[in-house]
Parts: sequence; structure tokens; C-alpha cells
Amino acid sequence: MNPIGVISMSYARPFTAAQFPLFARMRAAGMDFCELLVPEDGELDPTAAGRAARHAGLFLQLAARVNLQRDLASDDAAARVAGVDYLRRCVDVAGACGATIVGGPLYGAPLVFAGRAPTTIDEARRHERVQRVTEGLRAAAEFAEGSDVRFAIEPLNRFETDFCNTARQALALCTLVDHPAIGIMLDTFHMNIEEDDLEQAIRLAGPLLIHFQANENHRGFLGTGHIAWAPICRALAEAGYQGAITLEPFRRTGHLLSLPLAQWRPPSHDEDADLRASGDYLHGALHAARRT
Amino acid sequence: MNPIGVISMSYARPFTAAQFPLFARMRAAGMDFCELLVPEDGELDPTAAGRAARHAGLFLQLAARVNLQRDLASDDAAARVAGVDYLRRCVDVAGACGATIVGGPLYGAPLVFAGRAPTTIDEARRHERVQRVTEGLRAAAEFAEGSDVRFAIEPLNRFETDFCNTARQALALCTLVDHPAIGIMLDTFHMNIEEDDLEQAIRLAGPLLIHFQANENHRGFLGTGHIAWAPICRALAEAGYQGAITLEPFRRTGHLLSLPLAQWRPPSHDEDADLRASGDYLHGALHAARRT
Repeated sequence: MNPIGVISMSYARPFTAAQFPLFARMRAAGMDFCELLVPEDGELDPTAAGRAARHAGLFLQLAARVNLQRDLASDDAAARVAGVDYLRRCVDVAGACGATIVGGPLYGAPLVFAGRAPTTIDEARRHERVQRVTEGLRAAAEFAEGSDVRFAIEPLNRFETDFCNTARQALALCTLVDHPAIGIMLDTFHMNIEEDDLEQAIRLAGPLLIHFQANENHRGFLGTGHIAWAPICRALAEAGYQGAITLEPFRRTGHLLSLPLAQWRPPSHDEDADLRASGDYLHGALHAARRT
Repeated sequence: MNPIGVISMSYARPFTAAQFPLFARMRAAGMDFCELLVPEDGELDPTAAGRAARHAGLFLQLAARVNLQRDLASDDAAARVAGVDYLRRCVDVAGACGATIVGGPLYGAPLVFAGRAPTTIDEARRHERVQRVTEGLRAAAEFAEGSDVRFAIEPLNRFETDFCNTARQALALCTLVDHPAIGIMLDTFHMNIEEDDLEQAIRLAGPLLIHFQANENHRGFLGTGHIAWAPICRALAEAGYQGAITLEPFRRTGHLLSLPLAQWRPPSHDEDADLRASGDYLHGALHAARRT
């Protein structure tokens, strides 16, 4: 059965050594691993984080974070270099904490969270951006050679990036980079906005699918939205997906007017029972999918 | 049966007098009305637009556009005044072109399209913003008294606004403003991201629902995505909704990497047959819903 885990920021952000006791709570809530946001310099000792997680019975995976200063798609050469350096550092962090996957929008090109509005991109610039990202990812992938670490390219919805929004685009990017250290990750939150057919997207990624995030349409706990989990799990089984599945519930503004739903907020109360129930829901659907 | 129409920008943006011949194409594609983006000053004579639309056999409805310079939720008093002035102008434009609905994110607070990132909003500021929007909408509603024009508040997804994301929030805002010229509009594109249950959201808006937009999860033509139209149409029938339904298909980047999917782009070919098929699909589902 696929390991099921939780993103660190579902509990806390930033996640420092002071948060290590949370690993035991994640484990008690039925989680097999924690997907940690790649710590910024000085935020966290990755070796110590890996040790603390293992001590609690968890392993770690990594979620990379891009911004306009480290962006493989950038028009600014310094930002592109910083983007590759960052991905190399991610490999080192992964090695230190025992993670095998570095996932996320590794190509860069952030929109709303960087305060950047979508604008027109002409064909010449489009080609340049694709070329730059391909070269950047290849350089990062070559750095990962000989390690156990692989990069998982995540398509995001149209408001979070203007580079890669669908499984089909992620597949095209993998084909361009053409390196065994590069694969695809999919997140049902983004898929629900951009894909024609969620199950078909999973089948399309097929053997290149190396990481998965299971989120409701609105990022609430599983079962509180309208994602159809049974067909998703059948598609994962059909694609032969054996990898990790991360839960990232962080819808936390309730129904009050004038609160930023997209902005991360800390939990206001203990949500461990809700997290456990999301894991149970997913375990049940994955189990059933293997029987059909 | 509900009138079915199309947003003007599905064909062209800006929409000026040079685009009046498009009204005949919309009618030939089976549309009953055109939802026109409220023209900016000098862009279009609304009286002439109304006449041209009627001549082609269509009526008009209006989609209002906000920005940081006209924003009822703004910290800047001048932007709030401009926000109310704009809504008043919308009533005049509606009167001139024969529209009865001015819909959209009338409260302001744009995010990604204004290049604004979501940030934390504390409780005092949240209250202030709600108060400002309530007052602004009430002033606009009072201006509409005695006319046939009503304002339809549209919840948008979390990346487009940090003020109102769900039907429940729109209902709360209507309750605060408490004026017969204020109602709710819902758009399945945004609902698919933010609602727990799309049908329940329609039932919740109930008699306050005065406008509706039928869009696929990715804004392609109807049937190319995963929105379940039969239950949506049954919920509309159950809510007694007799109003207009607008189609807004404008997913136009295909599957190329590095193109802004959120950014409006003109059609690259004649899509009239696709638009007609979307209308047929919706007519069929609405008809069936009245039989169940």
C-alpha cells in the first residue's frame, strides 16, 4: 500500500527544531511520512530533522519552494543560476535527511504568490523560457546522479504559474529534459482546476509519476469537498503507482468575509482527528481500488 | 427555459462598435444574449450597443470590472469613492443598453490580476473591509433604486480575490447590505475550486440567485471537463432559478509549455460550432432537470 503522509505546513510554518515533537503527533495520526518544505538556510538542520522523524517512526520527503529570485524560467540570468543552485542544495538537503523525492514547481515562474500578474508571452519568449527551464532542470538532474534523489515536477493551476499547468505539459517537460532523475508529481487540487479528466491525467503520467498529493478541491480534509476519490485511486492502481501520497489540508478561514483563503494560516485547534480520518478515507479507497 | 448567452470577451476584447457584427454570429450560434464587459469610458456607446444587439435578436447583460483604483475594499479612500462611482456608472450603462444585471466581483479586492499577493489580514482590518464594502454596495444599490437594474455579487476563487470566495460569503454580504437591488451570481469555475458542494451552494443562494455562469473546471467548452451538469441543472431548477446563464469559454493555450493560461487570449479560429454545442448541452441538461 502507498505510504500516506502530511505536509509540514499543515502543522506549522516555519518548521524548525522546536517543531520536532510534531513528528510524534503526525505518526499518532496514522501518517507514514512528513513532506517537509525544504528549509531555508539556517532554518533547520536536515540531518537532525531526519533523525527526529525516524525516531518518531516517519520518513521525510521534500517540497521545494521557488520565488522570483530563484526561477529557472526567469529573464534574469542571476535568478536562473540561483534556481539551479537551489535545486542542487535540495539534493544535499534530501541526502542529509534521507528524502528521495524533491517535488514542486521546480521550473519556477510563480504568479500570484510572487505578486506577479499573468501577461502575454510571445512565441520567441516562450521558446526561450522552455529552453532555459530544460537546461536548468538537466543541470540539477545531473547533480542528482549517483544519489537516490529524484526531482518531481508539479504542474500548478493557472494562477500560481504560467509555465506548467497540466500533466500533459509536465510530461512534455520530462521528455525535453530526458534524465532518469526527473519525474512527475500530481496534486488533485491543481488537477481539479486544469485537467480535462483527472484519471486520464494520472494514466498519462504513468511510469513517470513519482509523487502524488491528495487534496480536496478547496484544500479541506478529504471528504469535505467534491473530488471523487474512488476513481482517482483506481487510476493510481492502474498506473502501477506505488509511491508516497501526501495530504496538504490547510483551508482555514472558515466562512468569514474578507480573509485570504490562499494565504497560509496556522491551525486554530487540534486537527489530528481530521487528519487521521483523511488518511483512513484514502487507505480505504486505495484498498478498494486494488480489488476492482 | 433560462436564456443562454455568451460573454463578449469569448469573441473579442476590447469590444467596440467595430465588433457589433459579432452579435449576429452569437445569435446564429444559438445565444439569447451577450454579457458585455462594462465598457471603459469612450470605448463603446452603450445605447448603440444595445440597439445593435437587439437588431441581431439578442439582449445584453453586464459584467463589471474592478481593479486597485476602483475597489470598495481598499484602504485608500479615493479608490473606494471611485469604486462606488464606477458602480453608479454601471447602472447608467445598463439603463442605456437595456441590461438588467450588473454582475461581477463588485466588492473589489483583486489579487492575481492586479499583481497583488495574498497577505495576512488581522481581525480589525477584516471588520473595516467588510464595513467599507457593505457601505459601498449600499450606496450603489440606492443609486439603482427606481431602475430595473440589479447588482449580482460574484464570489471568485481564492487567487482572484481575498474578499468573497463562496456562496455562503456572498449570502452573508447580501444580508449585511440588505437592499433589494443586491443579489448573488455564481460561476461554476469558481465554485469548483471553493465550494464543498456545488448543488448545495446553488440551493443556499436560493431566491437571491439572480445570475449564473456555466463554465467547465478549466474554462473550456462544456463537456470537455469534469463539471457534472445534470446535478447543477437540477439544483438550478430546484432553486426556481429562471434567470440568464452565461457561457465564458476562453481556455486557449492548448498544451504548450510556458503560456499564461489565466491571461485572456483572442480565439485563434472560428469556435461558433463549439459554442453552439455548449448551448445545446446546457439546454438539454436544463430540459431534463425539469423532468426529474
